[in-house]
Amino acid sequence: MRRIRIDLAYDGTHYHGWQVQPGLPTIQGTLEDVVRAIEGQPVHVAGSGRTDAGVHALAQVAAFSIENPIPVLNLRKAMNRLLPRDIRVWCAQETPLDFHPRFDAKAKTYEYRIWRGEVCSPFDHPYVHHHPYPLRIEDMIEAAPMLEGEHDFTAFAASDDRDQEGGSKVRTIWMSRISLEGERLYYRVRGSGFLKHMVRHIVGVMFEVGKGNLTARDIERRLTPGCGIAPGPAVPARGLFLVSVDY
Amino acid sequence: MRRIRIDLAYDGTHYHGWQVQPGLPTIQGTLEDVVRAIEGQPVHVAGSGRTDAGVHALAQVAAFSIENPIPVLNLRKAMNRLLPRDIRVWCAQETPLDFHPRFDAKAKTYEYRIWRGEVCSPFDHPYVHHHPYPLRIEDMIEAAPMLEGEHDFTAFAASDDRDQEGGSKVRTIWMSRISLEGERLYYRVRGSGFLKHMVRHIVGVMFEVGKGNLTARDIERRLTPGCGIAPGPAVPARGLFLVSVDY
Repeated sequence: MRRIRIDLAYDGTHYHGWQVQPGLPTIQGTLEDVVRAIEGQPVHVAGSGRTDAGVHALAQVAAFSIENPIPVLNLRKAMNRLLPRDIRVWCAQETPLDFHPRFDAKAKTYEYRIWRGEVCSPFDHPYVHHHPYPLRIEDMIEAAPMLEGEHDFTAFAASDDRDQEGGSKVRTIWMSRISLEGERLYYRVRGSGFLKHMVRHIVGVMFEVGKGNLTARDIERRLTPGCGIAPGPAVPARGLFLVSVDY
Repeated sequence: MRRIRIDLAYDGTHYHGWQVQPGLPTIQGTLEDVVRAIEGQPVHVAGSGRTDAGVHALAQVAAFSIENPIPVLNLRKAMNRLLPRDIRVWCAQETPLDFHPRFDAKAKTYEYRIWRGEVCSPFDHPYVHHHPYPLRIEDMIEAAPMLEGEHDFTAFAASDDRDQEGGSKVRTIWMSRISLEGERLYYRVRGSGFLKHMVRHIVGVMFEVGKGNLTARDIERRLTPGCGIAPGPAVPARGLFLVSVDY
């Protein structure tokens, strides 16, 4: 048996997220179909984490076990030949048999892209949140790093998030920054792990800061364990990219 | 009556080119549907030129005549609200009643994008020609400017091109350059006007130069009036962008 790690990119526009769902196109389901065709029997493909419907990845990491002796370079070629064009394997490599892309991940980086111009280019539209309205950008830039550190992120998790071991909603964020490049606004966040919908809820709260509806004090409150504040609002999935996973 | 000029962008992936074709989605047809909805009666939308099926535009120019007194800023907003997201109006403005985007155009600029890397990003795929094979790039860079000047481009026109007034295939090209940026290869061309399929045939011939199948001498021959050389090969439409039209 061999364990294969793949690094891949995908345009999430036409997928119902990472996780297999019967009858719906998903990234995991599409990968499993392709690996099954190569291996000749069903193969489970594990990911570093689930991405929501419509979320994109520049470099997701996944792994699976096969017996087929195909060299990794040919495996990458075979997968890319069989995969639809909106999923691409950058790299396939041998990895220890016990490698698990989710449990072994040390850090993940996400980026959220916002377009502030009046008209949104047809080439950008599937990949940005278009928000052509006034925002207090300076307040947003100042608020973003408040999320850095070890915090209880219950107020930023999905309300149906029962997915975390032990139920702990404590995560560590090493970087949480907003930057402005012309009409483009980027939110970049790097952390030990993320709860379901967490990045989109963080950006949603940043928007409320930008609109003047929330202040730094409100963010502090949301980071207080037991605050009981309902998460949200969330920004649309199409602006979100999984940028990298570190091991 | 008012004459309106619009500058627009489109992702040509899902369209059968610019020109109206019954029963098929086209850029012109989609624009005419939207202007008709605003004006309350059929309106002809003229373009600076036809783009082929699958060709994109960063800034195409079109014009139409309406009686509706709607301010141009609101007209732009109304059009963008009614148009699909892969067509966007950057700007709508009043223009003299005799303005014609095709006959008044002084110059057009096109760009053709090639990706040379082994794996093509899912985000780039609809907008590049993926060619991960060896090319003599230096020969291509050297050959591209040979097309500059006034030439008979019959050997670069579509074989079914009966579309040009007087049948003249003489055009002037002011700039014809290939540049390399990492794994990306760009062909940029600016000229007085272009025959049907002309840019894709030029890039196709540049590829033949890059593969060592054609030389500078062969290009000279193709530019000789009456050479009788059949045009081609053409490169795929998805890599081609209409960049700008000057008046």
